[in-house]
Amino acid sequence: MSKFWSPAIQSLVPYTPGEQPKVLDLIKLNTNENPYPPSPAVNEALCSFAIERLRLYPDPDSSQLKQALAQYHQLSEDQVFLGNGSDEVLALAFMAFFRQSKPLLMPAVTYSFYQVYCDLFQIQFRCEPLADDFSIDLSRYSEQNGGIIFANPNAPTGIPVPLTEIEALLQRNRDSLVLVDEAYVDFGGESAIGLIDRYPNLLVTHTFSKSRSLAGLRIGAAFGHPELIAGLERVKNSFNSYPLDMLAVTAAVASVQDDAYFRDICQRIISTRESTVCALKQLGFDVLPSASNFVFVRHPSITGSDLMQFLRERKLLVRHFNRPGLDAFLRITIGTDAEMQTLIDTLHSHPQLAGNH
Amino acid sequence: MSKFWSPAIQSLVPYTPGEQPKVLDLIKLNTNENPYPPSPAVNEALCSFAIERLRLYPDPDSSQLKQALAQYHQLSEDQVFLGNGSDEVLALAFMAFFRQSKPLLMPAVTYSFYQVYCDLFQIQFRCEPLADDFSIDLSRYSEQNGGIIFANPNAPTGIPVPLTEIEALLQRNRDSLVLVDEAYVDFGGESAIGLIDRYPNLLVTHTFSKSRSLAGLRIGAAFGHPELIAGLERVKNSFNSYPLDMLAVTAAVASVQDDAYFRDICQRIISTRESTVCALKQLGFDVLPSASNFVFVRHPSITGSDLMQFLRERKLLVRHFNRPGLDAFLRITIGTDAEMQTLIDTLHSHPQLAGNH
Repeated sequence: MSKFWSPAIQSLVPYTPGEQPKVLDLIKLNTNENPYPPSPAVNEALCSFAIERLRLYPDPDSSQLKQALAQYHQLSEDQVFLGNGSDEVLALAFMAFFRQSKPLLMPAVTYSFYQVYCDLFQIQFRCEPLADDFSIDLSRYSEQNGGIIFANPNAPTGIPVPLTEIEALLQRNRDSLVLVDEAYVDFGGESAIGLIDRYPNLLVTHTFSKSRSLAGLRIGAAFGHPELIAGLERVKNSFNSYPLDMLAVTAAVASVQDDAYFRDICQRIISTRESTVCALKQLGFDVLPSASNFVFVRHPSITGSDLMQFLRERKLLVRHFNRPGLDAFLRITIGTDAEMQTLIDTLHSHPQLAGNH
Repeated sequence: MSKFWSPAIQSLVPYTPGEQPKVLDLIKLNTNENPYPPSPAVNEALCSFAIERLRLYPDPDSSQLKQALAQYHQLSEDQVFLGNGSDEVLALAFMAFFRQSKPLLMPAVTYSFYQVYCDLFQIQFRCEPLADDFSIDLSRYSEQNGGIIFANPNAPTGIPVPLTEIEALLQRNRDSLVLVDEAYVDFGGESAIGLIDRYPNLLVTHTFSKSRSLAGLRIGAAFGHPELIAGLERVKNSFNSYPLDMLAVTAAVASVQDDAYFRDICQRIISTRESTVCALKQLGFDVLPSASNFVFVRHPSITGSDLMQFLRERKLLVRHFNRPGLDAFLRITIGTDAEMQTLIDTLHSHPQLAGNH
């Protein structure tokens, strides 16, 4: 607290990101990073970048990357917005669209940053409970609202929402914006980008931090009707003219252009996920059906915090959310086959799990 | 306009950055970039960076760069804040400190982004006129306020404020925050960083875009009392956990560590500025006394827009502000000696200036 702080920030509770440990000998399955490096094309593009150009400001519109993404998703450039990671894109979207007189609707369990943005921008919101199977039940989102947001697949459950249900929601909800956060969509979800031309009330966000292995460079995007993109540009240009740096744009363009590599590593992660799910079920875990690069699991007889601690002592980092309703679970990022084998072997060595093999 | 936009953004007027032309054969003296490349140490650090690490999130606190800057300025790490360019640092500071019941005070002529932030965050502000010689007269900033902000040296005038006057302002104004934006301080201004330990109401912002030749990478910083830095961290962590990417941090640390190069290029720019000022005065220009990497000049008989157009047709880009009171002036960035010679030669070829040599 300080007398110099704006009154509105005195009660803010910031988002807590997963731990980024400074020691290097841990197997990091806690922040949904990609176990594979970025495309070799990224390496080449960065190595051939002329460093002396860094003395100049970047293109404030990052047009090169807008073009690459527009082409990739068969959109026009004015349907693409870019930001410094999808967290910034989301923050700007909350400012641009959700400061309304009616409440924003979101699932009771979803990416926890959404509530932080509401606090920061003083946006009222209402949470809809998940269904009993932990899925998002969009038929419940029927009340008057100033917008709807959810992640698809959802976080931290990993469960996808069928596109047909999203389209039905868009039809029922033509007067407010529906934001679908597709951070994890490349690992088996169905993207709503194909609906953009038909629904001017749809905004879809993506990130380069998961499927494109570029968490270290901070690149996010939004796709939607040109009027929505214009609203985002207006807020962005009132906040920070140049959010994407030259090297981030260079790397991102190279990544988008190497589609074969992208598809290959996504497929590898999906296949590692499926074998991990089998192994975890054999150990007696309850595993929610994931279409993402992580699994959300609980064991009927061992608490989530005990398991996290047990793994951490054996140099395996996973994420535990200390929140009612979620605290029985662990969120485990899908690493390489070898990393997941180490995880499974380590779990087998747990005194209460040792019998299950 | 769109029915999906938040009402508050319908009337926003975004900041207009200087043009970043896509053609390459122009002499760019319009956005205060450094004519010299970043330190060779930046090149080395980027070339030896292991690209595969980009799959991981960066350190959300950018501790390595905080340490380097704390050491450089003889501060502790908790007196240093970092952001995605000083524009983002300023935006977060407006949110953290200036949303008060009393108005923010600022000069009528200063960095025009300040008023845009006020619009975005619905902050009331009052503008104090400049003195007749275009300097900031801090003795006028005497009314009750929710904060004071100005650039030192000021933009776009380039005129510095003496440190003694800033200290007197801090003493008169102990109950609200004074933000000194030192984007251009390394070209001859006096930094207020040395006052931080004595004045908990002082926040100083810096950028790597001008004196450190890293505009392309987006790195800004703020320095102040740990309670002020904590307020900034709280807002930052409610907005975007990871604003600085790994390559930007790597480059910035290398830049801070090569002080000899930094001092050398700043000194070169200062000396080019001095010779440019002489040459412009010989051509009959009125040149405001600059302590920055640009000069703000007007000619008694040629309009600012005519001169800008004349130069542009000859592939020299300078900045003209189409605002009452400023529209007679041009803001000319200091380039290399050769670039400035081209500028002077080109001006000599102007029909109304041809006699002045």
